[in-house]
Amino acid sequence: MRLNIRIIIRILSTVMLLLSLSMLPSMCVSLLYGESSVAKAFAACIVPIALLSILLIRMSNPDSSSIRTRDGILIVALCWIFGSVISAFPYIVSGAIPNFADAFFESASGLSTTGSTILQDIEVLPRGILFWRSFTHWLGGMGILVLAIALLPAIGVGAFHIAEAETSGPSMDKLSSKTYNSSRILYIIYIGMTAVETILLLFGGMDLFDALVHSFGSVATGGFSPYNDSIGHFGSLYIQMVVSLFSLMAGVNFHLYYLLFLKNTKGFFRDGELRAYLSIICAATLLLTAVLFGFGTAGSIGEALQLAFFQTVSIITTTGYCTTDFSLWPTAGMTILFLLFFVGGCSSSTSGSVKVVRIVVFMKLIRRGIYKRLHPTAVVPVKLGDRNLSSPVVSNIASFLFLYLTLFLLGTLLISIDSPDLITAASSVAACLGNIGPGLGEAGPVSNFSFYSDGSTLFLAMLMIIGRLELFTILLLFFPGFWNPDR
Amino acid sequence: MRLNIRIIIRILSTVMLLLSLSMLPSMCVSLLYGESSVAKAFAACIVPIALLSILLIRMSNPDSSSIRTRDGILIVALCWIFGSVISAFPYIVSGAIPNFADAFFESASGLSTTGSTILQDIEVLPRGILFWRSFTHWLGGMGILVLAIALLPAIGVGAFHIAEAETSGPSMDKLSSKTYNSSRILYIIYIGMTAVETILLLFGGMDLFDALVHSFGSVATGGFSPYNDSIGHFGSLYIQMVVSLFSLMAGVNFHLYYLLFLKNTKGFFRDGELRAYLSIICAATLLLTAVLFGFGTAGSIGEALQLAFFQTVSIITTTGYCTTDFSLWPTAGMTILFLLFFVGGCSSSTSGSVKVVRIVVFMKLIRRGIYKRLHPTAVVPVKLGDRNLSSPVVSNIASFLFLYLTLFLLGTLLISIDSPDLITAASSVAACLGNIGPGLGEAGPVSNFSFYSDGSTLFLAMLMIIGRLELFTILLLFFPGFWNPDR
Repeated sequence: MRLNIRIIIRILSTVMLLLSLSMLPSMCVSLLYGESSVAKAFAACIVPIALLSILLIRMSNPDSSSIRTRDGILIVALCWIFGSVISAFPYIVSGAIPNFADAFFESASGLSTTGSTILQDIEVLPRGILFWRSFTHWLGGMGILVLAIALLPAIGVGAFHIAEAETSGPSMDKLSSKTYNSSRILYIIYIGMTAVETILLLFGGMDLFDALVHSFGSVATGGFSPYNDSIGHFGSLYIQMVVSLFSLMAGVNFHLYYLLFLKNTKGFFRDGELRAYLSIICAATLLLTAVLFGFGTAGSIGEALQLAFFQTVSIITTTGYCTTDFSLWPTAGMTILFLLFFVGGCSSSTSGSVKVVRIVVFMKLIRRGIYKRLHPTAVVPVKLGDRNLSSPVVSNIASFLFLYLTLFLLGTLLISIDSPDLITAASSVAACLGNIGPGLGEAGPVSNFSFYSDGSTLFLAMLMIIGRLELFTILLLFFPGFWNPDR
Repeated sequence: MRLNIRIIIRILSTVMLLLSLSMLPSMCVSLLYGESSVAKAFAACIVPIALLSILLIRMSNPDSSSIRTRDGILIVALCWIFGSVISAFPYIVSGAIPNFADAFFESASGLSTTGSTILQDIEVLPRGILFWRSFTHWLGGMGILVLAIALLPAIGVGAFHIAEAETSGPSMDKLSSKTYNSSRILYIIYIGMTAVETILLLFGGMDLFDALVHSFGSVATGGFSPYNDSIGHFGSLYIQMVVSLFSLMAGVNFHLYYLLFLKNTKGFFRDGELRAYLSIICAATLLLTAVLFGFGTAGSIGEALQLAFFQTVSIITTTGYCTTDFSLWPTAGMTILFLLFFVGGCSSSTSGSVKVVRIVVFMKLIRRGIYKRLHPTAVVPVKLGDRNLSSPVVSNIASFLFLYLTLFLLGTLLISIDSPDLITAASSVAACLGNIGPGLGEAGPVSNFSFYSDGSTLFLAMLMIIGRLELFTILLLFFPGFWNPDR
């Protein structure tokens, strides 16, 4: 079975066209703030990319619209890689980030909703570029939710295999069959969430620009802020709570919102992954509160709770906003946060990392392992909610967990050549692979990734994309069997 | 099915009797060096323990000699826990280590062949105590190899289930059925290796005391040295090489030596685990050489190679001797060493940690996971050598790996409350759980574990025993189902 090159090019070009058109709002922001040279830079990116895309769409008239697993995987992988290259153009052309490796890092960090930065001083950047930077978060979050399940069917392509490559965890039974309808609702919910958060932030005293970019950063679980001290820039507890709550909501499986839309609140709260997600947040918040108060980092329990809740939600949802420099926290606090680096939100949310459903299965497999030592002949199914997971699903999840661990370890090994210490190396890799944002040590929240060499920067940017696309989508491309249709 | 309490007491008492008698050589060493008060302390330990044990053996006449999985697990677990308590007595009674938590740590570290210490100055201890300290390594190594497969059958108890609880990796096909004969040869090999190494070290200019204790430390992959700077105390390359080679040999599956004994050298070198073990050592040595030379830690490639080989073997075999303070190495060097913390030697060796065979299966599972994304319906067995691993064996290994990771993470979380930094916490836990010895950071090779509180010290000591007994043996005791015979 050969790859369907024409359809791959056609879809890629369509996505590139949309990506170039999505630079228009940022161009308008530049004009609004009187940054005419930045606006020109945007125009210089939009026009040629759009024209080239239209040309390619015209040329690649597909002889068949059939799309198989391999085509789907390649499309998703190329979309994110080329998308990151193209959305790096405004940084380079405007001169905001002249170095390609750095611009690619910032762009991949945006589209993959990671939020790590190589910028040493964010606040000197023009408004148009800052808007684009946050807007790539929003596009990336939308991309994860919708590209695969709504956009591609619209151009006449069945998207089942792509959805499979891009979403994580066991599929959602009956919901996934109604993809087209439900996915339209999903992206209405996504846009609605952004709008509501923006309005709530305006109420909190932010100006429209700040309200918009921070909404983009939270609903996409991204974490870019136009301020060097992130959400810490705003002293207000109200703003912290709004950002936390919307990040938390963005870390919930969006299919569950479809249940809410159908007024099935019972089904919403009966979801095992959601329950585990909320339980982990509660447990981590309480532990962290105890540590921060116990070690005297926070003066009162209330202050400790506030710091703990904000940072727990920010890390578990892989948003990465911060209100304080947690790399100065007591060791136990950092350990709790670093463990959360490997949890992530729910499947089919905008969050990255491992995802709660896989952590749940991980723990069930350990329990089963212990049980089976006592009862070697017992057949013990792994249950998720009411349903037994099939053995291929369990083995897929196990191999995902092993691969995630391996990528983290090999990544740390490689990056440690270029790192001042092991914590910086390990946390940089975990932060990029898990789409979180800031790491610990020298890559901590008040610092940035600028000290890495170009090679490391590109490698970390690739890790973001690999993590964003659930590892296998990208890694399969390096697997000889992928390119050999007969195997 | 109720636990066979009488037989459990009988075996435990027998082991305690042997353990008390095994203090005799150390008592002789004390007398030889004129440390009469230490000799008296040994006598004060030996006599009551021996008498009590004999009494218990007499009293516990078993009504049946049948021993089941649960009995076997309990025996092995209790042997190691009580054994560690009893072998801590000489430290306490002699006043060398008056604090119980510290003495238990040192004793568990000895018997589990870990080699971590809470001693700030080792060299001030009397010779008899230093000898006992290293001798516990040798007993522990012997225990791992032999207790389960030779000693217990000798007192009329089938040992199959115990062997299962104590040895790791897939069982050795035909070899394991000939347990009694082969295990006698195994412990002859163990004693022989100790003797040969002692003679070779004497040739290198060590006195008999040093030669013996360092032989104990290497063939048991323990790592206790009577010197604060460990093997670094001896400048000689010859001594380093002897210690390295015997550690390396002690990390090989002892069943393979039985093959050598049968003159089956082909079978020896065809073993997949051995090949992987040697390959990992070569790869890690080369990488580490490049790092140490590249970053200027070593002045020449030769020196880098020497440092790299010694430390690689010392860590992968979980011995823990050192010739230099590797906690001052470049970040990349520490990362390589820290990764080796999680490898370990071969199954059925005296080394601890995860064991190479499980790492091999781990990598094969990742490969299968990638392959199955392309061929979802394919049935892909996991092969080890020529043989397909059954799905229960694979799932056992996967659950072991998950459990190891979880214990490491939870342990780090707990210990980080009491640690100056994350690297110290994580490496302390990895070093104890993996029976390695020194960690990194404040628990590095020129430092020790004395800064931990008593609670942490006891916890780390338990981790050593948990790691030594392949996790499940101890953890099952905390599983309600273990104590409920009807479940």
